[in-house]
Amino acid sequence: MWFERIVAEGLSQNTYLVGSGGKAAVIDPRRDCTPCLDYADRHDAVITHIFETHRNEDYVSGALELAHRCNAKIYHGPKMDFAYGNTVREGDRFTLGTLELSVLETPGHTEESITLVLTDSEVSGEPYMVFSGDTLFFGDIARTDFFGPARKAEMAEKIYDSITKKILPLGDGVILCPAHGAGSACGSEIADHPFSTLGYERRTNPFLLIKKDAFVEQRTTESPYLPPYFRQMETVNKTGPVLLNDLPRPQPIPVATVASMIASGCQIVDIRFPTAFAAGHIPGSLSLWRDGIGSFAGWFLDYERPIVLVDDFTCTIDTVLRHFERMGYDTTAGWLAGGFPAWFRAARPVATTGACTVQDLKERLTREKPFLLDVRDRKNREHVGYIPGSQHVYVGELPQHLQEIPQDRPVVIYCDSGYKGSLATSVLSMHRFPDVTNVLGGMQAWVQAGYPVER
Amino acid sequence: MWFERIVAEGLSQNTYLVGSGGKAAVIDPRRDCTPCLDYADRHDAVITHIFETHRNEDYVSGALELAHRCNAKIYHGPKMDFAYGNTVREGDRFTLGTLELSVLETPGHTEESITLVLTDSEVSGEPYMVFSGDTLFFGDIARTDFFGPARKAEMAEKIYDSITKKILPLGDGVILCPAHGAGSACGSEIADHPFSTLGYERRTNPFLLIKKDAFVEQRTTESPYLPPYFRQMETVNKTGPVLLNDLPRPQPIPVATVASMIASGCQIVDIRFPTAFAAGHIPGSLSLWRDGIGSFAGWFLDYERPIVLVDDFTCTIDTVLRHFERMGYDTTAGWLAGGFPAWFRAARPVATTGACTVQDLKERLTREKPFLLDVRDRKNREHVGYIPGSQHVYVGELPQHLQEIPQDRPVVIYCDSGYKGSLATSVLSMHRFPDVTNVLGGMQAWVQAGYPVER
Amino acid sequence: MWFERIVAEGLSQNTYLVGSGGKAAVIDPRRDCTPCLDYADRHDAVITHIFETHRNEDYVSGALELAHRCNAKIYHGPKMDFAYGNTVREGDRFTLGTLELSVLETPGHTEESITLVLTDSEVSGEPYMVFSGDTLFFGDIARTDFFGPARKAEMAEKIYDSITKKILPLGDGVILCPAHGAGSACGSEIADHPFSTLGYERRTNPFLLIKKDAFVEQRTTESPYLPPYFRQMETVNKTGPVLLNDLPRPQPIPVATVASMIASGCQIVDIRFPTAFAAGHIPGSLSLWRDGIGSFAGWFLDYERPIVLVDDFTCTIDTVLRHFERMGYDTTAGWLAGGFPAWFRAARPVATTGACTVQDLKERLTREKPFLLDVRDRKNREHVGYIPGSQHVYVGELPQHLQEIPQDRPVVIYCDSGYKGSLATSVLSMHRFPDVTNVLGGMQAWVQAGYPVER
Amino acid sequence: MWFERIVAEGLSQNTYLVGSGGKAAVIDPRRDCTPCLDYADRHDAVITHIFETHRNEDYVSGALELAHRCNAKIYHGPKMDFAYGNTVREGDRFTLGTLELSVLETPGHTEESITLVLTDSEVSGEPYMVFSGDTLFFGDIARTDFFGPARKAEMAEKIYDSITKKILPLGDGVILCPAHGAGSACGSEIADHPFSTLGYERRTNPFLLIKKDAFVEQRTTESPYLPPYFRQMETVNKTGPVLLNDLPRPQPIPVATVASMIASGCQIVDIRFPTAFAAGHIPGSLSLWRDGIGSFAGWFLDYERPIVLVDDFTCTIDTVLRHFERMGYDTTAGWLAGGFPAWFRAARPVATTGACTVQDLKERLTREKPFLLDVRDRKNREHVGYIPGSQHVYVGELPQHLQEIPQDRPVVIYCDSGYKGSLATSVLSMHRFPDVTNVLGGMQAWVQAGYPVER
Repeated sequence: MWFERIVAEGLSQNTYLVGSGGKAAVIDPRRDCTPCLDYADRHDAVITHIFETHRNEDYVSGALELAHRCNAKIYHGPKMDFAYGNTVREGDRFTLGTLELSVLETPGHTEESITLVLTDSEVSGEPYMVFSGDTLFFGDIARTDFFGPARKAEMAEKIYDSITKKILPLGDGVILCPAHGAGSACGSEIADHPFSTLGYERRTNPFLLIKKDAFVEQRTTESPYLPPYFRQMETVNKTGPVLLNDLPRPQPIPVATVASMIASGCQIVDIRFPTAFAAGHIPGSLSLWRDGIGSFAGWFLDYERPIVLVDDFTCTIDTVLRHFERMGYDTTAGWLAGGFPAWFRAARPVATTGACTVQDLKERLTREKPFLLDVRDRKNREHVGYIPGSQHVYVGELPQHLQEIPQDRPVVIYCDSGYKGSLATSVLSMHRFPDVTNVLGGMQAWVQAGYPVER
Repeated sequence: MWFERIVAEGLSQNTYLVGSGGKAAVIDPRRDCTPCLDYADRHDAVITHIFETHRNEDYVSGALELAHRCNAKIYHGPKMDFAYGNTVREGDRFTLGTLELSVLETPGHTEESITLVLTDSEVSGEPYMVFSGDTLFFGDIARTDFFGPARKAEMAEKIYDSITKKILPLGDGVILCPAHGAGSACGSEIADHPFSTLGYERRTNPFLLIKKDAFVEQRTTESPYLPPYFRQMETVNKTGPVLLNDLPRPQPIPVATVASMIASGCQIVDIRFPTAFAAGHIPGSLSLWRDGIGSFAGWFLDYERPIVLVDDFTCTIDTVLRHFERMGYDTTAGWLAGGFPAWFRAARPVATTGACTVQDLKERLTREKPFLLDVRDRKNREHVGYIPGSQHVYVGELPQHLQEIPQDRPVVIYCDSGYKGSLATSVLSMHRFPDVTNVLGGMQAWVQAGYPVER
Repeated sequence: MWFERIVAEGLSQNTYLVGSGGKAAVIDPRRDCTPCLDYADRHDAVITHIFETHRNEDYVSGALELAHRCNAKIYHGPKMDFAYGNTVREGDRFTLGTLELSVLETPGHTEESITLVLTDSEVSGEPYMVFSGDTLFFGDIARTDFFGPARKAEMAEKIYDSITKKILPLGDGVILCPAHGAGSACGSEIADHPFSTLGYERRTNPFLLIKKDAFVEQRTTESPYLPPYFRQMETVNKTGPVLLNDLPRPQPIPVATVASMIASGCQIVDIRFPTAFAAGHIPGSLSLWRDGIGSFAGWFLDYERPIVLVDDFTCTIDTVLRHFERMGYDTTAGWLAGGFPAWFRAARPVATTGACTVQDLKERLTREKPFLLDVRDRKNREHVGYIPGSQHVYVGELPQHLQEIPQDRPVVIYCDSGYKGSLATSVLSMHRFPDVTNVLGGMQAWVQAGYPVER
Repeated sequence: MWFERIVAEGLSQNTYLVGSGGKAAVIDPRRDCTPCLDYADRHDAVITHIFETHRNEDYVSGALELAHRCNAKIYHGPKMDFAYGNTVREGDRFTLGTLELSVLETPGHTEESITLVLTDSEVSGEPYMVFSGDTLFFGDIARTDFFGPARKAEMAEKIYDSITKKILPLGDGVILCPAHGAGSACGSEIADHPFSTLGYERRTNPFLLIKKDAFVEQRTTESPYLPPYFRQMETVNKTGPVLLNDLPRPQPIPVATVASMIASGCQIVDIRFPTAFAAGHIPGSLSLWRDGIGSFAGWFLDYERPIVLVDDFTCTIDTVLRHFERMGYDTTAGWLAGGFPAWFRAARPVATTGACTVQDLKERLTREKPFLLDVRDRKNREHVGYIPGSQHVYVGELPQHLQEIPQDRPVVIYCDSGYKGSLATSVLSMHRFPDVTNVLGGMQAWVQAGYPVER
C-alpha cells in the first residue's frame, strides 16, 4: 500500500491519500488539490474515492474540484443535506486493492461526522489506521460548540461516546490520522506531533484522562472563539464551491491602481512582519503576517470587497495566495507590484504605529498611564498570567469591543510575542485610534525580562 | 527591460516575453502557457499584449488560453479571418514602459505573417530585436509551399522581399528572435544556435547568399514534406482551440482497460527506445520515441480515436503529455499503468520486430535478398548517400506507399540512426507485414563501419 | 517537536531526524546527507547528535560525512571497536529541547545494536516513538545469521529477548521507526507499510505470533541470502568511509573512451529494462534495471574495477548515481555519453539475448528440451510453486553455480516478473553461454496464463 | 552547439558555457559552480576548458573550485603572475567539437584581459559570439582606474584601442557576451538588457559615440567609486581561493550565542527592508537589504570577524549565503535562529532609527534645521539634482567622512529610494550618532511629490 499526507500550513489541515492496486482514496481534500493528482500519478493510480469526514467549516473543501479532474465519487456522512456527493453509513465498506476503508458514524463535532477505519488484508484483518477527521486530534478533541449553548451538553456526550465507544476500542496500536495538526482553529490544544496512535492518546490526551461527567461539565461551561468566516465555509461546503479555474487570477497591481481601489473600498492586507508594519504602511491596512493568515484572516476580512496584499518582496506570494484560496477569499485581486517600497517611492501617504520593547513599556508604565490592552486568547492569559493593570479583549473580537477602549489616551497593546499585537494596532488604527503601540515580544519578553506577572 | 524565451522542446517552438514598467507582451504563446504567467509574476508585471506572428500550423496556439487567464488582448496580422483577437497593420506601434513594438507586414510564409521590431527608448531609438515568426530563422527561411504549386513562385518572391526589403535593412546589429529552432518541422535547415543577429544571417544564411531569381527557382522546384496534422492546426488556430481545463485529464490506465480500449480501436503509442520496442511491444502499437513526438506524431495519429501511451516507467510522462497537448491531441486518454512490464506480467500478447546491426545487415545482404528500405528524408539521402540496392520511401509517407513494399519478402529498414527505422517497422507491422527488421544505428553506423555508400 | 524521515529508495533505508528547541538528532544517516542539513536549516535547528543503531552492513554510513559538515557528535552502541564516534550504553539519555532519547541495548542482529526510545515532555513522560534499527521491522525482524551457523541459536534468542523483554513492553501505542522498509536486503518479509506501532506488530507480525522455541528453531534452520558486498560495508563502516568530496565526480564518457575502458577490464552496468537489453547491449554488460540496483549490484560488482553505466537517456542518472554512492561503489566513473544509441550509431559491437513470452515458452517446452532455469529466491519458489521441469539457482548465487548449467543446450530463464531473469541472462552471457533467453513476465505471467504449476 | 548563461544576481556577474561534441568550455565561472556541472551533465558533455577573461576583482573566481570537480584546465591571459592555471596569448585557438574559441589580448581594464571569439564551423567561419569580460559591456565599457591616477590616460587609450581595433572589426552581427550586466560595481552605466551585439553597441553605446581624445579626457578626470573589498578579491584570485568544502557550513545560531558573539566583536548584518530595520534591530547592526549585498557588503564588512545575518524569516537565506560566499566572506557563521522576532521575544535590547516620508521631511525642513545628508552616488546627484540645503557623502565612503557630520543635531539621510539611506543610518548609529532618520522613498519620492530640486 502507499500513503501520503499533504499538510496545508497555516490552517494546519491534513489531506490523506491511501492507495493499493492502482486505486486511491483521498480523505478531506483541500481546494488546491493538484498535489493529490500528482501523488496518484506517481503511484500509477487513479483516484476513485473522495471522503469528507464532515462538512468542514474552516476551509473550502476540494472534493468537487478534485472530482472534476479525476471523475472520483464523493462520499459524505449522513444527516446533512449536501448539494453534491453520496451518503455513507455505519458499516459501509470500500475496497481499494488490498485495502478496506470502513465507516464509523462518530457524531459530536457535527451530526454527520464520520471516522474511516483502514485495514490492509495483505498484512492482517486488524485495524491499521483511523482517519478521525475533527473527532479526535493529537492531545485534543473536537469542538462541540457549533450548535449553540442549548445543545452543548448533548454534543459533548456524543463526542465522548464516539471516541470511547467506537474509536478507542479499535486498539492501542492503531495509527491516528486526524484532519488537523497544531495551530488549527479547530482545536486550540492540539499537540505539535507528527503522528500519534490510539494508545498514546488514551494514555496522554488530557480530555481522555477525565471521566465523561467532568468532560461534559467542562464543555458546557467553556465558549471557544468562533471566527466569523466559519459560517461562510459551512454554506460553501454544503452547496459546493466555485471551481478555481473559473476565478480570475491574482496579479501584480501597480501603485496607482491600488490607490484607486482603496478609494473604492478594497481591503488591504499587509503581510509583512510587525516591525516593518510599525515603521510604515498604507493607511487603513490590516497587519496580518504570513503565518497568521490561516488563523486570523477569517476574523477580519469580508467576502465581498476585493483584497490586495502588500509585502516587501514577493518571494512567497504564491504560498500566501494559496492561504486565501483555501479560505474561499475569491475576491483576492493580487498584490502591490513592487511591494511596499514602490508605495513610498511614489510618495503615497504612509501611516505608522508605535512599537516598543518590554523595557520601554516598563519604564512608560511608571511615567504615564497608557491604556494597556492584552489581546491574547483567554487560555493564554489564564495560563501564563498578565501584566498588572492590563485589560483583556481577544484580538479576533476587537471590532465588537471598540467602545471599551479609550480614544483619548495612548493605547499600548501586547500579545504573547508581538504578531497579534501588531494586528490589533492595525485594527485600532483603521478605526482612527490616534495613538497605538505594539509591544515587541509581548508577554514572552515581559516574562523573560523578569518583570512582575499577575494571575 | 526584461526578456524571457520559453522553448517547447520537440516542436522546437519559441515563445518570447518582453516587459518593462510592469507590463509585458507575449509573442507566439504555446498552449501550456503557465510559464508565461509565472515569468510575468516574477517580474512584477501584467501581460497586456499577446502577438501571434502568424496563424501557426505546427502547434496549438496558446493565445486564447493565456488571454483567458490574464485578460490580455490578442493581436494577429491582417488578411486572415480569425474568429478571435484583433488585427494589426504595418506601422502599428505598441508601448510597454520604455519598450516599443512596431509591426512589419512580412508575407510569404502566410499572407498575414508579421514581424515585430523592438526598440528600448531607455537606451536608444535604434532597433534592438526582431521577432520574425517563421519568416527568418537561423540558417533557414520560411516554408512557402502552403498555398499549392500554383502560388509557389509568388510566395517565394514575397518572402524574399519581406526579408531583404523590410527586415535586413534594420541593421546587422539587431538580435533575431524567430518562432522556431533546430528540429522544427517548419524549417528543415534551421541551425542549432541559441541566438543570432541580422548581420550573422546576412553573412552566413545560405538562402540569403543567393540572388532572388535563384531563390525563387529553388523554391518552385522543391516539395517539402507536409505533416498531415498541419491542416488540423490551421483550422484550430483560426477558429480558436478548446481551453485545457475543459479537457479530461490523462491518467494511468490498467492493463485490462487498455486491452478493451484496443478492442474498440484506440491508438497505442509506444514511447520507448528502438531496442526496447523490438524485443517486445503491444501488437499494433506505433513506435514513437519521446524526442520524435513533435516531428512524427502528426504524420500517423488521428484526432478522433483515443490515444494510450506505453513507456517502461513514467519518469517523464508529464513532459510527454505536454507534447500531445501542444499538438492538439485532446483525445489522449493516459498511459499504461505500470508500463510495458505490467503488460507482459499479465501474460498479454506481445509482438516483436527484428533489430540488427550494420554488421548483421552487411552479412545478410550477401546471404539473402531482403527488401532494403530507406525511410530517411530526401535531403538526408541525397546529402549523405545511401546503401546500394535500397529503395526510398520517407517514413512519414509510408502509409501512402505500402503497395510498393513486398509482403512476401523480409523487409529491412534503415534511417539515419535507428529511431525513424523503428517507427517504420511499427507502421509496417501494423499493416501485417510479417518480417520487418530495423537497422540499429542506420546510415550513421553504416558509414562509421566503412561500408560502401552510393549516391 | 518536528520529525522527518528520509527514505533511500532501492536500499529501502530510513534516516530519521527529530528536533526541538533548535537542536536536532539524526538516526542512521545515509551517505548523501545533504537533505538532513536542509531539513535542519528549515526547522532553524543545528544537528547536535548522530546515532547509529548498529554498524550497518548494507550501505555506507553517512555519520562521518554529516559530522564533517555540522560538528555533531556520533554515537554507537557498545561491544564494537569503531575507529570513530562515542559509545553509548543502556539507560544513557540525551536531551534536545523537550525531547529525550534514551538507549536500550538490543543485541541479536549484531552485538552492538541499540534501540532509541523517544519521549516528549511537552506532552507526557510516556514513550512516544522507538527507533529500532534492524531489530524490529514492519512484519519482520532482524537477520541473525551474520555470525555463522555456530551462533545462530544464540543470536536468535538474543533478538527474541530484545524485542519481547525490552521493546514491546514500552506499550502498544508507541510508534515504530525501523531502519528499513519493504524491499531491503536486511529483511525479506518486511511489509510495504508507511508506519507501524508496537501494538500492530504485536498483533500481526508473524515472528511475534510464535513462541520463543519455535522462533529459534526456525532461525537455526534457515539460511538467508547474503550479498557479498555486505562484508565491504561492514569494514568501511567500522573504520570510517571516505568523504564524498574527496571522490572524483562521475561524468559522461564518450563511446571511444568506454570502448577502451572495456578493453582494460571495467564493469559495464546496463540500467535499461529487460526488453531493451534483450534486443541489443554492449557485450559483457550486466543487466541491472534501475530499481534493482540496491538489491543486486552488491552480488555482482567488485570494488576495484571502474564502473560505467549505460542507459537509453539520462533523465534519472543522478538518482542512479546515488544508489552506487550509497553502496560504496566509489569507482563509478560515469555513464555512456549519448546512451546506448550512441554506441550503435558508432557501429560498435552489439550483443543480444533471447526474450520470450510465457506463451512462447509453453509452446517451446513441448517442441524442444531447453534447460529451464528458475532464478527466483527460494521462498518465492516455495510459496508460488514453479514451472514443471525447472531447475533452481538463485540469481545472486549464479556465479558459484555455473557448472550446473549446460553450455550446449539452449537455456531459458525465468524469475517472478522478468527483471531478475534479464540479470541472469546477462550473467550467463558474460560467461559465454551461447543461447540464453529470458521469459518476459516470468512466473507471474505463467500463472496468469493458467499454465500448470508444480510445488 | 549549446550555450548557457548563469547569472549571479546582486553581483550581476555572468558565467558562460558553450559546448559541442561532448566537450564544454566555461568562461568566468563563479565560486558556487555546481550549476556549470549540472548543465554539462544535461548536455552529456565534459567541461574541458575554463577561461578567465581577467583576474576578477569583484568576486571570488570559481576556476579552481570547478577544475577540482571536473579536471578541466584553467586558462588566463598573459602579463599576470597567477599561482595556478595556464597562460594564453593572442591568436591561441581551442577546439570543442565544431566550435573554436580564439584569443584576443584586450588590455585596458587590466593588463592581462582577454576577449574570446567564438566561431562554429558547422555554420560558417564567421565570428559568432565574443566573450568580452569587462572590456565591453552593454552601454558601458570597462573601468580603467585600477592602476592609479598616473596610468589613467594610458589604460584609457589601451581599452579604446582594444575595443575599436580588435573587437568592433569582428562585425556588427556578432553577439556580445560580457562578464557583467546592469547593477555591477564594474560598470555603473551598464544597460539592463538581456543581450546585445557589436552593431547595437557601435550605434548606441555612449562611450563608442565619442572620439578617442574625448574618451581619454573623460577617463582621466573621473574617479569611480572603489569598494575596498576589491583588493581582497584581487589577492585571492591571483593566489587561488579556498575550496568551499573546506569551509565550515553556516548554520542557524540561537539568540544567546549571537549575543555572546556580539560581545566578542562579530559583525551583524540585518538583511531586512528599511521599514523593518527602522522600527527595531539589534544594536550595532548594519542595514543591508538582500539585493544590496553584492554592491555594498564590500564597503563595510571586513574579512576577519565572524558575520551573523538577521532576517525576519529564512525563506531565502540560501540565496543570501551565496552572495557572501561569492564575495569571499568565508567567516560567515550563520543566521539568527528564529529571525529578529526571536531576539525581541527574548527581551534582548532593541535599537531603532527614524524613518519618515518626504512629506514629513518637507514639513520638518521648515520647522527645524536638521543636517540633511545625501548619500547617493555622485552621478545620481548630478543627474537628478538634489534637495536644497543637503550635503553629500557617498554611502560607501561614509566611514571616512564621519567628522563632517554633526553629532549634536538631528541627521536626516536620503538616497534615491530609501535603501542606501537605511544603510547610512545604520552606519551612523554604529558610530553612536544619537538622532538619525532615513527618508522613505528618497529622491524618487521627493521628485514625485513635486518638491523643489536643485542642481
